[in-house]
Amino acid sequence: MDRCFIRDVKVGERNKLQGYIENFRNKRSMAFIVLRDISGNFQVTVNKEEHPELNEILDELRQDSFISVEGEVIENSYVKLNGMELLADSIVVESIADVLPFTRLEKQKGQVQKKGNIDEAEYDLRMNYRWIDLRSETNQLMFKVQSYMVACMRNFLLERDFIEIHSPKITGAESESGAGVFSVDYFERKGYLIQSPQFYKQMAMTSGLDRIFEVGPVFRAEKSHTSKHATEFTCFDLEFSHIESVEDVMRMEEELLTDMLTRVAAKYNDKLTEIFGTPIVVPTLPFPRIKLADLYVELENRYGYVIPEADRGDLTTEAERLCAKFAQEKYGHEFLFVTDYSAAKRAFYHMRKDGVPQGYDLIWRGCEITTGAQREHRYEILKQQAEEKGLKKDVEFYLEFFRYGAPTHGGFGLGIDRLTMLLTDQSIKDAMFIFRDPERLNP
Amino acid sequence: MDRCFIRDVKVGERNKLQGYIENFRNKRSMAFIVLRDISGNFQVTVNKEEHPELNEILDELRQDSFISVEGEVIENSYVKLNGMELLADSIVVESIADVLPFTRLEKQKGQVQKKGNIDEAEYDLRMNYRWIDLRSETNQLMFKVQSYMVACMRNFLLERDFIEIHSPKITGAESESGAGVFSVDYFERKGYLIQSPQFYKQMAMTSGLDRIFEVGPVFRAEKSHTSKHATEFTCFDLEFSHIESVEDVMRMEEELLTDMLTRVAAKYNDKLTEIFGTPIVVPTLPFPRIKLADLYVELENRYGYVIPEADRGDLTTEAERLCAKFAQEKYGHEFLFVTDYSAAKRAFYHMRKDGVPQGYDLIWRGCEITTGAQREHRYEILKQQAEEKGLKKDVEFYLEFFRYGAPTHGGFGLGIDRLTMLLTDQSIKDAMFIFRDPERLNP
Repeated sequence: MDRCFIRDVKVGERNKLQGYIENFRNKRSMAFIVLRDISGNFQVTVNKEEHPELNEILDELRQDSFISVEGEVIENSYVKLNGMELLADSIVVESIADVLPFTRLEKQKGQVQKKGNIDEAEYDLRMNYRWIDLRSETNQLMFKVQSYMVACMRNFLLERDFIEIHSPKITGAESESGAGVFSVDYFERKGYLIQSPQFYKQMAMTSGLDRIFEVGPVFRAEKSHTSKHATEFTCFDLEFSHIESVEDVMRMEEELLTDMLTRVAAKYNDKLTEIFGTPIVVPTLPFPRIKLADLYVELENRYGYVIPEADRGDLTTEAERLCAKFAQEKYGHEFLFVTDYSAAKRAFYHMRKDGVPQGYDLIWRGCEITTGAQREHRYEILKQQAEEKGLKKDVEFYLEFFRYGAPTHGGFGLGIDRLTMLLTDQSIKDAMFIFRDPERLNP
Repeated sequence: MDRCFIRDVKVGERNKLQGYIENFRNKRSMAFIVLRDISGNFQVTVNKEEHPELNEILDELRQDSFISVEGEVIENSYVKLNGMELLADSIVVESIADVLPFTRLEKQKGQVQKKGNIDEAEYDLRMNYRWIDLRSETNQLMFKVQSYMVACMRNFLLERDFIEIHSPKITGAESESGAGVFSVDYFERKGYLIQSPQFYKQMAMTSGLDRIFEVGPVFRAEKSHTSKHATEFTCFDLEFSHIESVEDVMRMEEELLTDMLTRVAAKYNDKLTEIFGTPIVVPTLPFPRIKLADLYVELENRYGYVIPEADRGDLTTEAERLCAKFAQEKYGHEFLFVTDYSAAKRAFYHMRKDGVPQGYDLIWRGCEITTGAQREHRYEILKQQAEEKGLKKDVEFYLEFFRYGAPTHGGFGLGIDRLTMLLTDQSIKDAMFIFRDPERLNP
């Protein structure tokens, strides 16, 4: 018979369930198995006196072994889990598990570890056996939510005439800054892994593709060890033509995120609240906007925080953190657009008006999730802005894109791992399927 | 006023259009511009006597410059294009194009180049300026179709409880074969770019994620120069648990492809037929299946093709090509599942029954588009199969996945660039946004 998801079990009928053994008690006359599949947990009960032929199998079972069971499902109010149980008359062992290298107990209890609260040795062990670590309701919920979040954002854009592209990850040109780039042995020469698809998504604009997005890996050869950095992560990038100002870009982003959060909340808010304690606050439109200089004044007046001289024109991690408090107090909002950064601190390709970059950062829950901008599309001005930053040879190929006609355009990028992290209040290490940092390349 | 897509133009009203100049004739008293945006082409007419203030702008315009125009749209049966024109009273130049490095004439005429018919020097020029090359209806259609194709496949899977994952592209372990892998300078050691997400999607199965897919880049350091190979391309990979046999995997794939082709045909068949001459034949279910040994007999009997001794147990490119003819003649079908390859020619992780790998290749239009299989999920057998292939150290981390419980599972991968190539009868070089081969790393 066909396997049935645990969520679809029918009382009074014969069912076939398959899953990992979450819990196992083998008593004299009865055995109790808690079976786990992607859709939930379920109690399987074996009456050993009625089914002596199953004794041999029961004796070799261990936690996390993978089995198929068949039998009738009955209601039983004594069973805490769902008030139901499956009375097994057939058990097939698909795979016996070795003794696990660590216990997943804390996950079973729903006591989710908060970021910044991780024991390094325990963390390393969990990450070395990440696939076992992932076998918890907590982690499975996280990836269900991430998958749905990305699907919602894609659909929002596809409905608005965006085209999904796939740009190269190895390039012959060193990226923007030159620093922080991984190099690749590319036959007889060096190639470089992209730090962002920025140049290629702008190329798509000069290709006349009008509106594009891409979801793909980006690579950062940076020795950062924080709760929000990784050497490789997945970026949701978009770029679109025919804009009047950076305001069009901010509007697209706030509408995209509001639509996504509305849908994710409708589907997962109860579970996010129950398991992570992070209910979604569906934002109101428009998101609040503030100029950087005005934000400095607010942070100083309200919290006595003075931005260090060296960081003027930009935000520090501490300032980002305070933005959550400020946005809540002043606007009753979780999001905050910060605009009017200093040209010295922003990329050369941001369009400037009266010397001010037409870009922004978006802060959510005290963490920067996006840099967006209207881009400079006029070749001569773009070239001059690159030269002012001391960039020449490494942006030559990029400048060429703008010599043969270019539309006005803008865009932004969202790290989906960071979004997942903020949605669930986890460390970036726990919010990624497999985390990468300067030391970690396995599994 | 807001910019209007060309497809949405309203007759009798004032419209604002933005786009590239596809064609431009500047006469004494009139100027005619064919404007192109992502949704189509449109004639813009300027009465120079009525608008002498536009003369200066008209004098500097060139093909592929990017402009905004405003004016009333009227019906005019003398205009071949749409039977309409926009009478411009305002033109804003967003960006003037230099003289183009090559003409896009052949594309304008809809004479699409067929694969295998490419002049190398002309090709190099086009690829060096790929963004200009992409500004044709032909190429834009190709990427609209690709984007929609991938969206359809994703939706098919999301509706069936699949979760989208994002696995790492840099790994510490050399891949399966050891050969054909790009190495990366990863801080003080070497990392390797994945040739396929195979190991990670199987890890997702042992993580209990049940059903997953991933769309991402894969990397092949191979000096192949054919019309269907690239050093970097995008793979649509999936893997799912709880299967009874490889037949479940084939059924998932044929249903996925049939659903996708049905939807793509409904939306794009007319355009694909008109521009590429490649109407979609929506396949019937089930797809025909044939064992490799039986296929050998058929190819020899029907076409006198004898598979070379060294290739026995596998298919050659020529044999794949003949499969198109054979599948059409025998089954009236474009697709053909070929099963029962020899264990010596297949990956160690394919499950075997009586020594026969439980996998298949899927051939479409004479080209292999998939390898799929039921995977071996039993640790001891998997380990033994790896050892028989002489694999040891490089698959150690992978074998670990199966030591702590594993479900039955299987899956396959589809190269989306190759699918796009076959849908449009183009070379792989033309079917990718930006193509990569051993020589080409730019743009």
